[in-house]
Amino acid sequence: MPKTSKTAVLVAGSWGTAIASVLADNGHQVALWSRNKDQVEEINSRHRNHRFLPNAILSERIRATDSMEEALQAADAVIIVAPSAAMRDVASQMQPFLSEQTTVVHATKGFEAGSLKRMTEVLSDELKGYDANRIVVLSGPSHAEEVIERRPTTVVVASIDKNEAEKAQDLLIAPYFRVYTNPDVVGVEVGGALKNIIALGAGLSDGLGFGDNAKAALLTRGLAEIARLGTAMGANPLTFSGLAGIGDLVVTCTSQHSRNWRAGSLLAQGLSLDEVLSRMGMVVEGVKTTQAAYRLASQYEIAMPITSELHHVLFDGKEPQLAVEDLMGRGRTHEIEDLAEPFQNGWADQE
Amino acid sequence: MPKTSKTAVLVAGSWGTAIASVLADNGHQVALWSRNKDQVEEINSRHRNHRFLPNAILSERIRATDSMEEALQAADAVIIVAPSAAMRDVASQMQPFLSEQTTVVHATKGFEAGSLKRMTEVLSDELKGYDANRIVVLSGPSHAEEVIERRPTTVVVASIDKNEAEKAQDLLIAPYFRVYTNPDVVGVEVGGALKNIIALGAGLSDGLGFGDNAKAALLTRGLAEIARLGTAMGANPLTFSGLAGIGDLVVTCTSQHSRNWRAGSLLAQGLSLDEVLSRMGMVVEGVKTTQAAYRLASQYEIAMPITSELHHVLFDGKEPQLAVEDLMGRGRTHEIEDLAEPFQNGWADQE
Repeated sequence: MPKTSKTAVLVAGSWGTAIASVLADNGHQVALWSRNKDQVEEINSRHRNHRFLPNAILSERIRATDSMEEALQAADAVIIVAPSAAMRDVASQMQPFLSEQTTVVHATKGFEAGSLKRMTEVLSDELKGYDANRIVVLSGPSHAEEVIERRPTTVVVASIDKNEAEKAQDLLIAPYFRVYTNPDVVGVEVGGALKNIIALGAGLSDGLGFGDNAKAALLTRGLAEIARLGTAMGANPLTFSGLAGIGDLVVTCTSQHSRNWRAGSLLAQGLSLDEVLSRMGMVVEGVKTTQAAYRLASQYEIAMPITSELHHVLFDGKEPQLAVEDLMGRGRTHEIEDLAEPFQNGWADQE
Repeated sequence: MPKTSKTAVLVAGSWGTAIASVLADNGHQVALWSRNKDQVEEINSRHRNHRFLPNAILSERIRATDSMEEALQAADAVIIVAPSAAMRDVASQMQPFLSEQTTVVHATKGFEAGSLKRMTEVLSDELKGYDANRIVVLSGPSHAEEVIERRPTTVVVASIDKNEAEKAQDLLIAPYFRVYTNPDVVGVEVGGALKNIIALGAGLSDGLGFGDNAKAALLTRGLAEIARLGTAMGANPLTFSGLAGIGDLVVTCTSQHSRNWRAGSLLAQGLSLDEVLSRMGMVVEGVKTTQAAYRLASQYEIAMPITSELHHVLFDGKEPQLAVEDLMGRGRTHEIEDLAEPFQNGWADQE
């Protein structure tokens, strides 16, 4: 990879714009793709993306464009930061213009609704002729608002192809932006997608006035069930102890800016799901993700008690307080056998 | 174990008093031992422990005493919640009165200064004639202030002897107090002791104005190095993904009540360690623990970059900002191989 690369970022939301800024800080040329002509104009003439990052002034190395062909032409790397619901459409638009030479990275968290496919699976469906094993996923605890201010941030990039993961690492690593590599694509994608369930639960717990002990329990036990599902789906359990697992979970559950947290706290006040969603006026990822995880848990036959209780609260009108009592009242449990498959009890000779 | 047990709790600090309350809620008789006659009098006549839990009214099933003999007589279980520096002395006072029948639980976090022994090792030294394999450790994310208000809390009890761990579980489990068992005594003790290092670092990070991304990175990478040391000391790495690992770390690092957090934030303002300690006017566990972990890391030949940089800041006058830059600027790192021994890279065929 040349020292100065030609890169493309799709699309110009807050996280896409922040990643574009990291690339620009590293001296790379960035084509920032957006369908919105006003936004393209604003970025190119005023170096602002007012709607998503109101306080930031963008580098002149970032050029916005609404032409996919122009964005991808001779690109050394493309970073896709589309919402999960738009991923298939963006990928299909990329396909005609994508060169085999280009490194493909995505930084989108979530499953495709309906198919429950991971984002690299959606990309792999649409990017015909491109080797899916080379696709890189970027994740980790990274509020865009802090990255754009160059506050210290760590992320992880994962790919089946080590060389491609290291290309992404080289492109993005900066004094304030530390990039770790990891071969576990499934784990990094599942961790990023499922954390929003626990954020919703954290809002619910805080809304019920439960305190820090309860929230820490929710994070810990929530991570354990995410890791159980992820491991069944093929992930390395260690990934959930890393930046895309516990790291992202901590930042999401302790930030009161999170939409998922807010939705949970409104549910705790006794509002119905419809009332919460209409009051929020925007997508709450954790709601769709709870549905997806509930289906996946049943498909893979994995016990996910927290996800399951949240599903009852969201879709069956269960009282939040009763859901918590049911979680606290489960039988006596051994922690380790609950954390890992295969069984690693350490008391096997005493059973 | 009878349905109503005779229990003893040593000593009457905030956590000891909260545990006494859980036992009393479960219908057990509790002898709460304290050397302080005024405190004994206050608890017995006014059902208050004003200094440690100013808002709580204690159950009449809790009787305070300054007699160790009385506290331990015919006790089914004793729970020791002494400060780590007092553990050896309390244990040696217990020894003459402790029956072989009594279940011994401790809930103390920290190493013994100097010897760097874990608390069960100190107990084992002093409780001559008592089978050390039966000792139970209790840990997890549990602010006493929330437990005394019966807010939902989860903890873990670990013992080499499964039967003893389950006795402790049965005694303590309550609708608001969920108790998991775990066979990994070393992991549960090391997790609880070392979390204060990371809390100190979290205060430093917040004091430098770094934000949520940096703090999540610190927790994640901090947990990784705690797990590395713990595993070298004989722990099960999975324990660090549980309540005594990540659970306790989250509650300590996100609570601004923590003394360790406050000490870190004062260091960030440029105060020297001496100035910080004199301004705090009380023990800051994380300072001693950083020293202990630094020595243990060297003894076990484990890389602990965060502990090491904190040690430089605390004891060598290194600028906090420079320590962070050095942490962010380390070479390119693979996340998984950094998280676990033995090496589980997944890219082995691509090396």
